[in-house]
Amino acid sequence: MDTELLKSFTARVLAGEKRAVSRGISLIESDVAAGEQLLQYLYNHTGKAYRIGITGPPGAGKSSITNQLTKAFIKANKKVGIIAVDPTSPFTGGALLGDRVRMSDVGNTEGVFIRSMATRGSLGGLNAKARDAADLLDAAGYDFILFETVGVGQSELDIVKAADTVIVVLVPESGDAIQAMKAGLMEIADFYVVNKSDRPGSEQAVNAIRTMLMMRGHDEHSWMPEVIKTIAPENKGIDDVIEEINRHQAYLCIEEKFNSRRLKRVQDRIKEIVQDKLLHELWNSERISEFMRERMSNEESMKVSPYEHAGIIIRAFKESIL
Amino acid sequence: MDTELLKSFTARVLAGEKRAVSRGISLIESDVAAGEQLLQYLYNHTGKAYRIGITGPPGAGKSSITNQLTKAFIKANKKVGIIAVDPTSPFTGGALLGDRVRMSDVGNTEGVFIRSMATRGSLGGLNAKARDAADLLDAAGYDFILFETVGVGQSELDIVKAADTVIVVLVPESGDAIQAMKAGLMEIADFYVVNKSDRPGSEQAVNAIRTMLMMRGHDEHSWMPEVIKTIAPENKGIDDVIEEINRHQAYLCIEEKFNSRRLKRVQDRIKEIVQDKLLHELWNSERISEFMRERMSNEESMKVSPYEHAGIIIRAFKESIL
Repeated sequence: MDTELLKSFTARVLAGEKRAVSRGISLIESDVAAGEQLLQYLYNHTGKAYRIGITGPPGAGKSSITNQLTKAFIKANKKVGIIAVDPTSPFTGGALLGDRVRMSDVGNTEGVFIRSMATRGSLGGLNAKARDAADLLDAAGYDFILFETVGVGQSELDIVKAADTVIVVLVPESGDAIQAMKAGLMEIADFYVVNKSDRPGSEQAVNAIRTMLMMRGHDEHSWMPEVIKTIAPENKGIDDVIEEINRHQAYLCIEEKFNSRRLKRVQDRIKEIVQDKLLHELWNSERISEFMRERMSNEESMKVSPYEHAGIIIRAFKESIL
Repeated sequence: MDTELLKSFTARVLAGEKRAVSRGISLIESDVAAGEQLLQYLYNHTGKAYRIGITGPPGAGKSSITNQLTKAFIKANKKVGIIAVDPTSPFTGGALLGDRVRMSDVGNTEGVFIRSMATRGSLGGLNAKARDAADLLDAAGYDFILFETVGVGQSELDIVKAADTVIVVLVPESGDAIQAMKAGLMEIADFYVVNKSDRPGSEQAVNAIRTMLMMRGHDEHSWMPEVIKTIAPENKGIDDVIEEINRHQAYLCIEEKFNSRRLKRVQDRIKEIVQDKLLHELWNSERISEFMRERMSNEESMKVSPYEHAGIIIRAFKESIL
C-alpha cells in the first residue's frame, strides 16, 4: 500500500468507517510494515477509549457478560469495540469466540465492532496485534474496548493486563476461585464477577474470594477489589458491574494512577517491540544464519564453549549492522 | 579472579576435586564473567557424561528414584552428579530438594556430588545456570548427571529437555497421568515411571499412559516410550529403569540421533546466550535508559506510536555499539 493510499485509508478509519476498521485490523495482522505505518498515522488520535479486559476460566460466561455490557453501553449511546482473543487456536478471521457475541443480539448493532483474533506465528505475536487493534479502534472513535479471552493462560493474562480495568469472571463451583488465584488472576483482577450466581455455592465462592483478598492486606490508598454476583443471561447484576467499572475508573483518576498506568503500558509495549525487532533482525540475518551453520557444522565446534560461540556471533551481528 | 588463578582452579575441577567443583558452580551462579571464563577452559573436556532428566508432579517420588538410581550407578563404579532444580523457590544454596537426597544413604558417598539450585534474578536465569553446572560436572569426570525438578512448570520442562534421556515420574492416582500429559510432559518423556505402584490403580494408570502413547502413532524408526512400574523405597523396578535408560541410549546411538540431539541442544543454548547478552546490553545501556526516560517523560510522547519510539530506540542502540 503506497503512502497516499494509506493516508486516505487512515482518514476513513478516523471517520469510523466499519469496513476501513476491519480492513485496518487485517493489515495489522498480515502486513507488518503497512500496519506499523497505519498506527503511526492513527496514534495521535488514541487515548480516548476506555479499555476493559474480561478473563476467567472457560465456561464462566465471559461472552455473556461481554454481550450484556455491550448492550448497556449502547443504550448510553457509546460505541463498543470487542476484541475476542484465543491464543490456543491456530485459526483466525472470525470463526471463534467473537462469533458467540456476533450472533447474539448486539452483533449487528451500528455502534458495535467485533473481531476475533487467534494465534499467528507472526512477528510480535497475538498479544501485540491485539493491542495494535485496540489502538486502531480507539482512534476510530470507539468509546469502550473490551478484550475477551477464552481462558487464563499466560498470554491471555498479558493481553488483559493491557486494559484500564480488568474483570475476572468465575462460577460458583467450589475450587474454581482457588484455581483462578493459582493461575495468577489475583494479581491482575481489578474486580471479580461470580456469574451464574443462581447455582448452589455462590455465597461461599464470594466469601472465599473476599477472604483471599483480605489476606493480602491493603492500605487506604490501595484499591480493594469487589466481588459482584451476576446472572448474565437474565441481565442480573450487570448494572453493578458497570458501577464497579466506573468506581475503578474514578479511583484511577483520583489517585492519579490513570496516566501512570497507561504510560507503564506504553513503555512495556515499546520495550517488547524493540526486543522483537532486534531479535528478528538478528535471526533473520543471512550472514548470521550462515555463520551459525558454518560454526556448528562439525564435531570440533562442540569443543568450544557456548559462551565463546555466542560472543563471536554477537560481534558478527554488530559488524553486520554497521 | 585473575587468569592464572582461574587456570589453576580449572585444573582442580578437571581433577575432580569436590571442593573445586562446588566452588566452580558457585562462581557460575554469582560471577557471570568468571563463570563464563571457567566454562571456556573446561568445555573441551565435556561431552562424556550421560545426562538424565527426572521430572513429574510434586510427591511422585522423584527424589526417591534419584536416590536409588544413584546407588545403582555407584555400585557400577560410576560417578554421579545431581542437580536439583527448584524454579519456584527464591532461595538457593542447598536447603532444598537436594537435601532429601543428601541426607539419604548416598549423600556422603565419595563418587556423588549434589547441588540444589533455585531461582535467581541473574542474567540468563536458572535454566542456563543449571546447564552450565552440568557442563562443569561433565568436565570434572562425573559419568552420570541427574537433573531433578520439584514440579512440572515450563522452566522445569526446559531444564530436563537438556538431558539425553528424560524420565517422567507419576503416581497411580487417577487423573495424574492425564494432568501430566496436559502439562506438556508427553512431548518430552523418553519413558515413564509409575512409582508407588503398590497403591491401587497402578495397572489402570499404566494402561492409560500406554493408550495415550498409542494414539500418537509411531513408525519403526521412532522411539516408543515404555511405562515402568516402581516402588522406589523398596528398590523395586529400579533395574528396569536402568535397563530402559540403556535401551534409550542405544536407540539414540543406533539411529544416529545422539550427536544431532546434543548439537541441537548446544545450538539452542548459544541462541539463548546471544539473545540474553544482546538484550542485557540494550537495557543496561546508560544511553538507552536516559533516552527512554527523556522520550517518555511527557504527555506529548503518548501521541507518538510505540513503533516510532521503538524504531528510534533501535537506531540509538545501533549507534551506541559502533
